[in-house]
Amino acid sequence: MKVERLRKVQVKLKKSQLEAILVTNPINLFYLFGFGEDECFALITREKAWLYVSVLNLPEVRSLIKGAGISLTSNKEALITTIKSLALRNIGFESSHLTFQRLSAWKKISHSAKLMPTLDFIENLRLAKDKYEIALIRKAAAIADQIYRQIRPYIKPGRTEQYIANKVDALIREKGCEPAFKTIVASGSGSAIPHHVISNRKLKKDDIVILDFGAIYKGYRSDLTRTVFLGKINKIFQTLYHVVLEAQTKAITALGPGVKTQYIDQVAREVITKAGYGRYFIHSTGHGVGLDIHESPRISSKDTMTLQPGMVITVEPGIYILDIGGVRIEDMALITDKGHEVLTKAAK
Amino acid sequence: MKVERLRKVQVKLKKSQLEAILVTNPINLFYLFGFGEDECFALITREKAWLYVSVLNLPEVRSLIKGAGISLTSNKEALITTIKSLALRNIGFESSHLTFQRLSAWKKISHSAKLMPTLDFIENLRLAKDKYEIALIRKAAAIADQIYRQIRPYIKPGRTEQYIANKVDALIREKGCEPAFKTIVASGSGSAIPHHVISNRKLKKDDIVILDFGAIYKGYRSDLTRTVFLGKINKIFQTLYHVVLEAQTKAITALGPGVKTQYIDQVAREVITKAGYGRYFIHSTGHGVGLDIHESPRISSKDTMTLQPGMVITVEPGIYILDIGGVRIEDMALITDKGHEVLTKAAK
Repeated sequence: MKVERLRKVQVKLKKSQLEAILVTNPINLFYLFGFGEDECFALITREKAWLYVSVLNLPEVRSLIKGAGISLTSNKEALITTIKSLALRNIGFESSHLTFQRLSAWKKISHSAKLMPTLDFIENLRLAKDKYEIALIRKAAAIADQIYRQIRPYIKPGRTEQYIANKVDALIREKGCEPAFKTIVASGSGSAIPHHVISNRKLKKDDIVILDFGAIYKGYRSDLTRTVFLGKINKIFQTLYHVVLEAQTKAITALGPGVKTQYIDQVAREVITKAGYGRYFIHSTGHGVGLDIHESPRISSKDTMTLQPGMVITVEPGIYILDIGGVRIEDMALITDKGHEVLTKAAK
Repeated sequence: MKVERLRKVQVKLKKSQLEAILVTNPINLFYLFGFGEDECFALITREKAWLYVSVLNLPEVRSLIKGAGISLTSNKEALITTIKSLALRNIGFESSHLTFQRLSAWKKISHSAKLMPTLDFIENLRLAKDKYEIALIRKAAAIADQIYRQIRPYIKPGRTEQYIANKVDALIREKGCEPAFKTIVASGSGSAIPHHVISNRKLKKDDIVILDFGAIYKGYRSDLTRTVFLGKINKIFQTLYHVVLEAQTKAITALGPGVKTQYIDQVAREVITKAGYGRYFIHSTGHGVGLDIHESPRISSKDTMTLQPGMVITVEPGIYILDIGGVRIEDMALITDKGHEVLTKAAK
């Protein structure tokens, strides 16, 4: 584990009215301790940290947090006694993760402490990735590139969408990874549906195919979309492809620290709108990616964040014309001190 | 979808103080509507039902619920207006699923209605499986049996745990299924750890190997464990195996409607305790299985339920001696009107 991440939580606690935070979101636990499961939780005070895991996971977690000065236990009662003895007054909890039932149980045992809802307390620390995270995301992106090269020859008439998706997933697993989300293969008029359900439709001559997939490498995810033409490209799709590519290129060029996420969405949307396809661009331009496949910031007209160095986002404009077909092109980019770096390199 | 399931919810509402229930648990939504995702939800009143899904999922869900008289929408605002116009007073919510944040958002828009926590409202209807569910679970169990026959020749000295687990998962996927949980392959002294983390340890001559896996078939899960001896069985393990098998056989024989789950656990535990290994049987005897891998009832000394026709449970006693090794044998059984039926048939 990276003990600096825990220290950042403690610094943030010191600046807040909270004396401690109860962490229950498994992804946040993984970020802080290198281990996170549904029933495990951590209590982090301004000076110390306690981690509760099931007795079945004790040996594994003990080796992960070695030397980090964290109190590890599988004895919930003892931990509760500790919490009581600390006489904490304000304990934050993760309101977008803790269920009503678990919160009620915590309220019963939290003694004189007041449990206070927090939103994105740890998530906001995860916005800017540290160098260890960037190295892992870089690798996850490179694996996606490699798989795209490997799968490309299999995308041809006669193959079913399901066959290609299975092949992508098998390639991901061959590399010791897991799919970052349910692989999308959307062909023909199915390409007009962003969350197309994979079918046994066979690819046809002159078909259009959207392939959207990613790999999880040591917890970190990649996300890559390519639109492939199988034969002759008809004129409409030639136009759509060039409009989407221009929208993506301009949005990527605009990426850099201090730039509003809203502005990036606007850049992509303007290209598509000016070409006359604005109403067919039915989703936002991108999203943060890391331990989760969809993280903050959102590259959307509704988002209010500003890009900062260390953020990793996708840029994925698309045009979807129902019953006709669609085009989407997606890459991952890292925001750097001076600008940005595109992490996925697969041929477009 | 099976509209009778929705009717059962409505009958239960009529008998309760609740005028409606807000369903947010994706597994419960799948049970009722054949579709469940994180952001989707349903409001079920005593007479009607509204289902909200993302616009991306509308076409798929529309065909699933055809003719069932359910109002389907991707317009949250319109649904909220409807809820207000119904002037509902008591709306139940799923307290073990709804987060504090989502509950707070619902409280803001629920107008004069009081949101009341419910626990296992739908889950209790899922306890006894209907004939459609039993058919699917039967198939999931048969797939596990088939995979065990296929994998058995690969369990031999020189292979790593990871190799065998990958092979099991590939066989599951070849059949169009997904693993029901993270496949366990625990060999040598690793077999003494029920939640062993799969390693690259190579199986040795005369090793003991615990294989625990299952498949998801159309949403329904199977769960099967076999303990395999690779060569000469030393005397201790011969004894352990026979004790566990006797415990399992006696517990299965005792299964039937009207029998307390506690009693089943007691039957298995008594055999192991009398043989002198009571303190090495460190988990409960089994659990319900269906859309979830671990459901009610628990076959445990702490559970207070009574078996009823249609319940599907596992019976999986084990003995684990740290640094030496372990044995676990697990089968799935259906409780019938007159007794029980073992669903998994793999050779022991």
